[in-house]
Amino acid sequence: MEFKKIVQQRRSVKSYDPEKAISDAELKELFDEVVLSPSSFNLQHWTFIAVKEPEMKKKFREAAWGQPQVEECSVSILVCGRLDGYKDAPKIYDEVPTEVQKKVLPMIHDFYEGKEQLQRDEAIRSASLAAMSLMYGAADRGWATGPMIGFDPEAVSTLLKLTPNMIPVMIIVLGHQKDAPRPRAYRHPVGDVVRWNASDGPGLNGA
Amino acid sequence: MEFKKIVQQRRSVKSYDPEKAISDAELKELFDEVVLSPSSFNLQHWTFIAVKEPEMKKKFREAAWGQPQVEECSVSILVCGRLDGYKDAPKIYDEVPTEVQKKVLPMIHDFYEGKEQLQRDEAIRSASLAAMSLMYGAADRGWATGPMIGFDPEAVSTLLKLTPNMIPVMIIVLGHQKDAPRPRAYRHPVGDVVRWNASDGPGLNGA
Repeated sequence: MEFKKIVQQRRSVKSYDPEKAISDAELKELFDEVVLSPSSFNLQHWTFIAVKEPEMKKKFREAAWGQPQVEECSVSILVCGRLDGYKDAPKIYDEVPTEVQKKVLPMIHDFYEGKEQLQRDEAIRSASLAAMSLMYGAADRGWATGPMIGFDPEAVSTLLKLTPNMIPVMIIVLGHQKDAPRPRAYRHPVGDVVRWNASDGPGLNGA
Repeated sequence: MEFKKIVQQRRSVKSYDPEKAISDAELKELFDEVVLSPSSFNLQHWTFIAVKEPEMKKKFREAAWGQPQVEECSVSILVCGRLDGYKDAPKIYDEVPTEVQKKVLPMIHDFYEGKEQLQRDEAIRSASLAAMSLMYGAADRGWATGPMIGFDPEAVSTLLKLTPNMIPVMIIVLGHQKDAPRPRAYRHPVGDVVRWNASDGPGLNGA
């Protein structure tokens, strides 16, 4: 689908047809695109935990403030960030020339090591970039998605067995939309959120 | 352009033709799409500070480890997150029915007020979702982008006069690509980063 159409059509959807499934093969194709998202130093700080079995979705829903879409959608996905993504650098840079490795690997290590806030920032940043790709890729296939932060991070982490190096970044519910979308909600004008040169600079007016 | 093509073509680009400009009208059209990105409670925690004048780009480059693409691209954009985005809720929900406002506004306030880590997480999360939209929207127009975290956050915040409620999330350089892209770098296999039911669950293999 044309990206312009996807952008206009994509909405955050809460209402799903619980009878409709998305196959593993379809899901794999979607994620083949998602993993092409950019990340700092190409560290790919993301992990996705997907839930489709009814019993497990029921438990996932309970950990997500009981919100029905977690159970009614086709696949509920916890988008996680990995705090120690930088430790994958040797694997990720395995095929680059040794001279480059010698320069890049220590730089990456020093950039992140011991910096807990930066590690968390990066995990959220990279996982969110991939999450947006997931939502557009789903829309491209005619599927609906809903990003959610309304959940109990500890309950979700326990249920889906997150390791200490992982944090939950958002849930994305994925499936076939049931009801028609509501009118699109208010957006701040572009001229307010895009400024020239400074936070109090003139707004972008496009003229 | 077809989204599938955009996903395959989009790359993080460092080499720009400094002679080519992007007009304000073109930039406005791009941001009209970017602001349709989703955010928690639709709070739109993002602000973009765009730089195109040569002198200002030169200073911006200095604050970004001297990386040439910040100066050579058409427009350098600092994607910022707003820590107090939740304070915009009354404006954002101004047109919804009063009964809804009475329920939603206190909920949003209580969700964020006093929770500094959550405020930061949200600023990064929402700004990153919008940043990915920006990169896809640019690619759709045949433009190149490069997301960057290699900069001095304090120097950048001073230069672009960020207020205390704002944090720099990433720089995105935007322009016309000069050199051909390098081969795409390593990606973790989908089966490694997408797991069923738990972080140590079976990988998605699509079979």
